[in-house]
Formats: sequence, C-alpha cells, structure tokens
Amino acid sequence: MFQLFIANKNYSSWSLRPWLLLRQLQIPFNEQLVTFEEGGSWEKFRSFSPNGQVPCLVDGDTTVWDSLAIVEYIAESHAKVWPQDKAARAWARCASAEMHSGFAVLRDICTMNCGVRVQLAEIPASLQRNIDRFEELWLEGLQRFGGPFLAGDEFTAVDAFFAPVTVRAKNYDLPLSPSAAEYRDRILDLPAMQEWIGDALKEPWREPGHEEELRRAGTIVEDLRQ
Amino acid sequence: MFQLFIANKNYSSWSLRPWLLLRQLQIPFNEQLVTFEEGGSWEKFRSFSPNGQVPCLVDGDTTVWDSLAIVEYIAESHAKVWPQDKAARAWARCASAEMHSGFAVLRDICTMNCGVRVQLAEIPASLQRNIDRFEELWLEGLQRFGGPFLAGDEFTAVDAFFAPVTVRAKNYDLPLSPSAAEYRDRILDLPAMQEWIGDALKEPWREPGHEEELRRAGTIVEDLRQ
Repeated sequence: MFQLFIANKNYSSWSLRPWLLLRQLQIPFNEQLVTFEEGGSWEKFRSFSPNGQVPCLVDGDTTVWDSLAIVEYIAESHAKVWPQDKAARAWARCASAEMHSGFAVLRDICTMNCGVRVQLAEIPASLQRNIDRFEELWLEGLQRFGGPFLAGDEFTAVDAFFAPVTVRAKNYDLPLSPSAAEYRDRILDLPAMQEWIGDALKEPWREPGHEEELRRAGTIVEDLRQ
Repeated sequence: MFQLFIANKNYSSWSLRPWLLLRQLQIPFNEQLVTFEEGGSWEKFRSFSPNGQVPCLVDGDTTVWDSLAIVEYIAESHAKVWPQDKAARAWARCASAEMHSGFAVLRDICTMNCGVRVQLAEIPASLQRNIDRFEELWLEGLQRFGGPFLAGDEFTAVDAFFAPVTVRAKNYDLPLSPSAAEYRDRILDLPAMQEWIGDALKEPWREPGHEEELRRAGTIVEDLRQ
C-alpha cells in the first residue's frame, strides 16, 4: 500500500494535493503526518524525503518526492488521475504544472492556513495578477470542458492542484467572479476536503514561522482552530 | 509538425529544455524564436502562450504552455522521453519536477547566459545548498542507473531538465566534484547543446534586464558573444 508522508494539514498546501487526489480516487494509502519544525524542517524531512520536503510517496522500494511526480506515478497504475480526453489532459497538465512552478505571490502572501480568516491590508498588483490568472484558468477549464470540475465531469489531478487555492480564496476573501466562487465552494464542499479541513482545525500544533506569515498578510478576523 | 516557441537562446533556460529533448530524440519541429522584450515579455508572449511565458508547444489545435507538461505531452506519442525502467522513470520525474519548482537561488544568482563567463563575488550558503543538492542528484542518478546519463544509458527528459544547470555550472565556474564535472561536460559536448550555444553566441540581441542580472552576480571575465 502507498505511504504518503505529509506535514500539518493546517499549513501544508503541497501535502493536500496528492492526499486529496488519492481520497477522491478512493485509492487506499497510509497517511504519515510529520509536523513542521520551528526554524526549518529540512533535516527532519530528509529522513524520509530526499529533497527534505513534503509530500513524499513511498511505494515499496520506490520513493517519489515531488507532488507532480507523485501524480504521474499514480497515473501509471490508476485510471482517472488525468482526464481521458487528450486535449483535456494536455490542458490539465499545463494548468497543474503552472501551479507547480508559479503563483509565487499568491503563495507568499496568502499562505494556506485552513483555520484562520484574514482580511488583507491590501491586494498588491502582483497578487491581483495571480488572482486574475487562476480565475482565468478556472473559467477557461470549466467552459471548455463543460464542468463541474476543471477538466470535465470528473475530479482529476488539476482540481487537486488548485484545491489549496480554494482554501486561500475563501480564507483571505479574495474577490472572485460568481462562476469562480461557485467552483471554489464546490471543491471546499467535497467530503474529502471537509475531512482535511476538519483534521486541520483539530491540530494542536502552532509553527511560529507559518503563524508569522499569516499576521504579516493582514488582520486576523477569525480563528476557527481549537 | 510540432511548433516550439522559445525565446533568446542566450538567456532562455526554460526554452532549452524541450528544445534539447526534441533534438536529442530526433523529433522534427519548427522553431519559433520570439525575443525577450525590455521591461517584461508577458504581453508579447501572451499572443501565443496562455501564461505569457516560454517555452510553448503548439501541435495543431493543442497548445501546451509549460516545460514539464510539454515533456509529458511528447511522451504520450514518442518513446524514450522517460526511461523505460519504472524505478528510473519515477526518479527522473522527481528530479525533473524538483528542478521545475525549485533551485530558486541558483536560478536567481546564476542566470543562464550562454555567452558570458562570470566570476562570482561569493557563493552564499543558500547557493551552496542548491549546488550541493543538484550535485547529489546527479551523482545519485549516475551511480544508481549506471550512467552515462542521469537515468541510465540514454539521454532522457531529466538530462534536458538539468541541461541549463550545466551551462551555469561552467559559466559561473561552480565548484563540482570530478564525477559531476564529467557529467556537466558530457552534456555540454552534445552536438545539440553545441548547436544551441553556437546559435546563442550569434544572437545580436541584448536584453537589459538579463544583462543587469549578470553584472549583479559578479565580475564578467569573458564575453564570447559576437
């Protein structure tokens, strides 16, 4: 059975991606949660992940240490990771890869924190460009492939790749058009997302670095964590 | 036939990756070179690439706008993009994906400029960590899969993904162990790499932003461009 190493569900947006994909596709796995370390987790995570980062999938002798590589690895043995239609699959891979290497401002300012709502002090132009771009991608996918998911009528890896963005969009109250807001809520309402967020709210750990990033972004208006 | 949009060969490390892969696999394509624009190329590149970046592959009606997605798209219809061995393929995808989203310091400080040798003012600890990591990956791949390429006896996409690093390693004279330096030179000596670099040296264009990044890194000791 797959072992999936993840970090704190409250903070770890990268961990959420393959975790949600596996849950949605009903692929069994053992979850190995390793908490972030104050001051940096590289050494701690190096004990199981070659690049000192999460997520990391272990399948027998094989270690797969990057979120996109994990997705492709799973796709080799399981259907429905990517859309069946070739054009939809190419689009889904492009959008996922763009998320994988891009959206740096969104990730820096609106760090994922499932339990906390933040009012941003402002939306700088660089952040607005990131918002415009993910919204453009969402609307393009929904329209072109017919919805309700980004690349058609089934949840695929590209939805998993943008799942953390739905959390950020809600918790930082990012301005979205009605269609994009509907998609955001559609993902947030998935039972597997509710499970992840529910687990995140119950976590007792507070990692100072992540908490500080949150305060830097704006004013905390609600903390739903226990 | 594939159309591959790339930017200046002298500067565009991302363009080099799929270009080199296509050349090495002897897959025919039309090269569409669009030069970088002073002050930002996003608008110019948006005319053919949805995220305003290069490289971008066009195959009939299908546009594939990210380097890693391009590789997976090509792999669907052409053999030898990834290694045949499953473990080697998983490793190659992980290393490529790590390059795709990581090594930010290396990319920031040692920007690719095929024609210019630079003596770094210093190697900050953050850069040294990036050097240590790509060297670790190279040595691991070469040893585990037997070489002479990173994932075995044939050139695959993971070599293409690290090809720009071989240019940086040489031009910034980054300290490498003998085995890593041998691999660096093996890639640089490929006829296709020599073709790319030869073309880069002949380019008449100088984009001020890229030139400034170069000067910020250290002292220019040699400029081989015409």
